Amino acid sequence: MTISSVDIHEVGPREGMQFEGIGDPSRIATGEKVRLVDALSGTGLSAIQVTSFVSPKAVPQMADADEITTAFSAAPGVTYDAVYLNDKGLLRAIDCGRYTIRGQVMLTASETFSVKNQRRTTAEDIEMQRKMAAVYAEHGYAIEQGMLMAAFGCNYEGDIPLQRVIDMTATLFDLAAERGSMLSEVMLADTMGWADPLQMQRTIGAVQDRWPDVDVSLHLHDTRGTAMANTWTAMQMGVRKFDTSIGGLGGCPFAKSVAGNVPTEDLAFMCDRMGIETGVDVAALVDCVRIAEEVVGHPLPSRVGHASLVAA
Amino acid sequence: MTISSVDIHEVGPREGMQFEGIGDPSRIATGEKVRLVDALSGTGLSAIQVTSFVSPKAVPQMADADEITTAFSAAPGVTYDAVYLNDKGLLRAIDCGRYTIRGQVMLTASETFSVKNQRRTTAEDIEMQRKMAAVYAEHGYAIEQGMLMAAFGCNYEGDIPLQRVIDMTATLFDLAAERGSMLSEVMLADTMGWADPLQMQRTIGAVQDRWPDVDVSLHLHDTRGTAMANTWTAMQMGVRKFDTSIGGLGGCPFAKSVAGNVPTEDLAFMCDRMGIETGVDVAALVDCVRIAEEVVGHPLPSRVGHASLVAA
Repeated sequence: MTISSVDIHEVGPREGMQFEGIGDPSRIATGEKVRLVDALSGTGLSAIQVTSFVSPKAVPQMADADEITTAFSAAPGVTYDAVYLNDKGLLRAIDCGRYTIRGQVMLTASETFSVKNQRRTTAEDIEMQRKMAAVYAEHGYAIEQGMLMAAFGCNYEGDIPLQRVIDMTATLFDLAAERGSMLSEVMLADTMGWADPLQMQRTIGAVQDRWPDVDVSLHLHDTRGTAMANTWTAMQMGVRKFDTSIGGLGGCPFAKSVAGNVPTEDLAFMCDRMGIETGVDVAALVDCVRIAEEVVGHPLPSRVGHASLVAA
Repeated sequence: MTISSVDIHEVGPREGMQFEGIGDPSRIATGEKVRLVDALSGTGLSAIQVTSFVSPKAVPQMADADEITTAFSAAPGVTYDAVYLNDKGLLRAIDCGRYTIRGQVMLTASETFSVKNQRRTTAEDIEMQRKMAAVYAEHGYAIEQGMLMAAFGCNYEGDIPLQRVIDMTATLFDLAAERGSMLSEVMLADTMGWADPLQMQRTIGAVQDRWPDVDVSLHLHDTRGTAMANTWTAMQMGVRKFDTSIGGLGGCPFAKSVAGNVPTEDLAFMCDRMGIETGVDVAALVDCVRIAEEVVGHPLPSRVGHASLVAA
């Protein structure tokens, strides 16, 4: 199979600022966060996740989400989006008018993690998805994407049985069907970084077998060093859309020792070497790694960001 | 293909101390270097590279190689080896009596890098290999392993054509044949960390096609984030032996911004998850990451070493 192109969805500004502000929410000035988003807009990236509309009580480091949303400069040809975990957040994202809204339903394969991260049991989470689906419907959005978090393992529950992944993915399809929608994309998230390549093959294979017309996409954290191997495994299975974060920014405040996503520049470099189009300029991404490190005030896990790029 | 086991050759003590001492050779006390080797001996690793017998003038941080060699405690069932780049170094390794000696010929696919790293042109390097082959023969060692450095790219010369890799590998076989030996192993080194998975497939495939009975092994640096993806790609092609370094220790003093090898604990963890036997105890390796970080005085690139290991 020749892989001609891969879509990169940059999630660093959201992942990074959610994580970096833990315990000291005002450490990074809002202007600095905006500076990073604006820098990323000039790299050829076509999709950037800017911030998260969550409760400032639960996640104080995201209290400036509205301010960031007003302040960043939207570049032509780039879509911007935000994260929201409930109907209130979704309405903020719709109302601001600056984000691409795509109907989404999202569940978590580990109930323990759902309770820690979303503060909802699975049953409560399903109800919240219905509530959000109603908001999407009111505003004319079809439900296109289903997302399953912690699909490959959980720091609290351990292994996630493949059957549970399939069952909960089926629930995502059901939730979309309740609104007359058919999902076109299933995003599987290795939220806590447990996946290995064989598990990737089994899991993606099972989802593709059951829903052959649906695109699988991935959100992988590199907590245990397997994310690039998993990414390449998935690419060979036809996966063409990945969440990545500049410099490897990020982590998860609700699970200890969780690393950031696959560094954007590392995936883009690997694709470049293989003649796989990503549309991004790796050298421009490396400049953004430097900016991201200035913004957060410490080195990031990026490899390409710290290596010489050209043979010289 | 079911992969039942993988052999890990730990090269961290040598890679790490070669790199960490640049500019300040006495920064790390000899006893600390020995402490790391001894800790690694208790992890289930079966092969550990301890040090490098190179000229203390060229590489002052290796001036304590003899001292380390005398001081470490050999554990039963573990083999220890050293690096040497010329006949003098080889004789030191043989004479000390503490290292497993395996007849080896080694060339570099980039002549520019050969001159920088070995201070020899390719022609001079071939002559040195003949000289070393004579020493092996005098001491009754067959030439078993051929190693090709910079086989996947060079910071100075850029891409390395596949034909050059094949031609130079053929030269390694010729050098062994001059001594009546047939190589049983070809180790390809991505010394400066340029390889991508498709290149891995092309290169390993070409070597396997030409020499079907020979084992390919790999020495991969993670300079640009591709090493784990490359490792997994190679495993799927039948490669079963990898050099790795604890914590991702290392780098190369003769090429700027070169990262260490694949972290031992990251590869071991990935194998564990997939039911692939490595013989090592990942938790014990994580303890060694902590020791390695104490020894060098800064955090290492390890992922597993900084993550929670068990679901808890």
